[in-house]
Amino acid sequence: MARYAIKIEYNGEGFVGWQRQKTHLGVQQVIEEALLRMEPTASPVQGAGRTDAGVHAIGQVAHLDMVKDWEPFRLKEALNFHLKPNLIAVTDVALVAPDFHARFDAQARHYIFRLVARREPVVFDHGLVWHVRGPLDMDAMQEAANHMLGKHDFTTFRSMMCQAKSPVKNLDRLTIRQRPVINGVEFTFDVRARSFLHNQVRSLVGSLKQVGSGTWTPDDMRQALEAKDRQACGPVSPPFGLYLSHVVYPNDPFENA
Amino acid sequence: MARYAIKIEYNGEGFVGWQRQKTHLGVQQVIEEALLRMEPTASPVQGAGRTDAGVHAIGQVAHLDMVKDWEPFRLKEALNFHLKPNLIAVTDVALVAPDFHARFDAQARHYIFRLVARREPVVFDHGLVWHVRGPLDMDAMQEAANHMLGKHDFTTFRSMMCQAKSPVKNLDRLTIRQRPVINGVEFTFDVRARSFLHNQVRSLVGSLKQVGSGTWTPDDMRQALEAKDRQACGPVSPPFGLYLSHVVYPNDPFENA
Repeated sequence: MARYAIKIEYNGEGFVGWQRQKTHLGVQQVIEEALLRMEPTASPVQGAGRTDAGVHAIGQVAHLDMVKDWEPFRLKEALNFHLKPNLIAVTDVALVAPDFHARFDAQARHYIFRLVARREPVVFDHGLVWHVRGPLDMDAMQEAANHMLGKHDFTTFRSMMCQAKSPVKNLDRLTIRQRPVINGVEFTFDVRARSFLHNQVRSLVGSLKQVGSGTWTPDDMRQALEAKDRQACGPVSPPFGLYLSHVVYPNDPFENA
Repeated sequence: MARYAIKIEYNGEGFVGWQRQKTHLGVQQVIEEALLRMEPTASPVQGAGRTDAGVHAIGQVAHLDMVKDWEPFRLKEALNFHLKPNLIAVTDVALVAPDFHARFDAQARHYIFRLVARREPVVFDHGLVWHVRGPLDMDAMQEAANHMLGKHDFTTFRSMMCQAKSPVKNLDRLTIRQRPVINGVEFTFDVRARSFLHNQVRSLVGSLKQVGSGTWTPDDMRQALEAKDRQACGPVSPPFGLYLSHVVYPNDPFENA
């Protein structure tokens, strides 16, 4: 028996999210079924973060146990072979200690959110970005974002379905980059925390978009946070702009892989 | 009656190409049907280049006549509204002289071809790039590409179905850029000529890939050109990496739009 960490990219479109559910297909289930074609007694796959339906991943991490000792490169090749034609790719595999846990050992999760502001529809990034038609004010959004940094009660930016015991989270980073695209601007929100509440990133981005379009001032965003009231949140952004981009561990399992 | 030039982006997946055909949907037909919802006697739309099935466009140009005098911004808005939900966007509209002709006035066409070389499957750019598993030698490909520049008989790199009168074309530019992607490299081929033979860009890129993988030397590429024999061509690359990116006119109709 050997434990492996795997790093995974997936296009969330067409999946009910990371976690398997009774009636709909989760990414986790697709990977478990690929493993069953490699070893008849494959174990469950445990992911670092439960991405919602439609949310993508660039660097999801999961752990799994194999009966046979697989050379990591061969395990990656076999998994990618059996995952076809799903839009899921295993980009890294590492042998880890038997007590490594993808979820409990994670020190931080890093998400990005892609938003394209241009008047015309989005053609090539359809389903990969949130498209808004009006221009957005970058500086106002960054000013509002800065009010979110640090340890706060994020009740305002938390789904009613969130099962976390406490609404208090510590936001390490919320920075916004922009780059020109044809007839518009693409904004990328970089968000990092030890862990997040359910829908927290999408609630924050949806509210920041209100600031960018001038509907809210940066100070309205601060007041929304201080209200500790779900009703004070802006419209939640759609899932398809969101990517789980990186999971941080005390010792990066892929560093020497 | 007023003539307009329009600039168009489209995802070629799901279309039989630019040109309408009896049994399959062309981008041209979709635009003509959108125009019919705006004016009951809309004229045919004439494109600068006939892209093949699966080929994309970033900067296709077409001209069309409208009975009513449309303000260009309003024409763009109305067209994009009626083109939904197709992955087609009109990114620019300009009023032009009544004798402007998108195809015959074009001085040059510019294509790009996107190729991703990495071992793992491509997730987010699926259908938007040609994916090859092995690494490719950038310098060898550029050396081979340089042999193609200038005026040549391109019979080797021409589809058997090509209807051009002469196989002689003048290639102004064939440059290759590279940028890192996760676990691999994305190569972008920039190709420019007054006009092209059928399948010329895809034949050139398919043969350059043979050079990049070491199957051919750069000199083999030169010899393939000199053979003037379709049998000497490498495997033709798939359509979905190819984009019509820019059409050049003596006076850019969109410059002051």
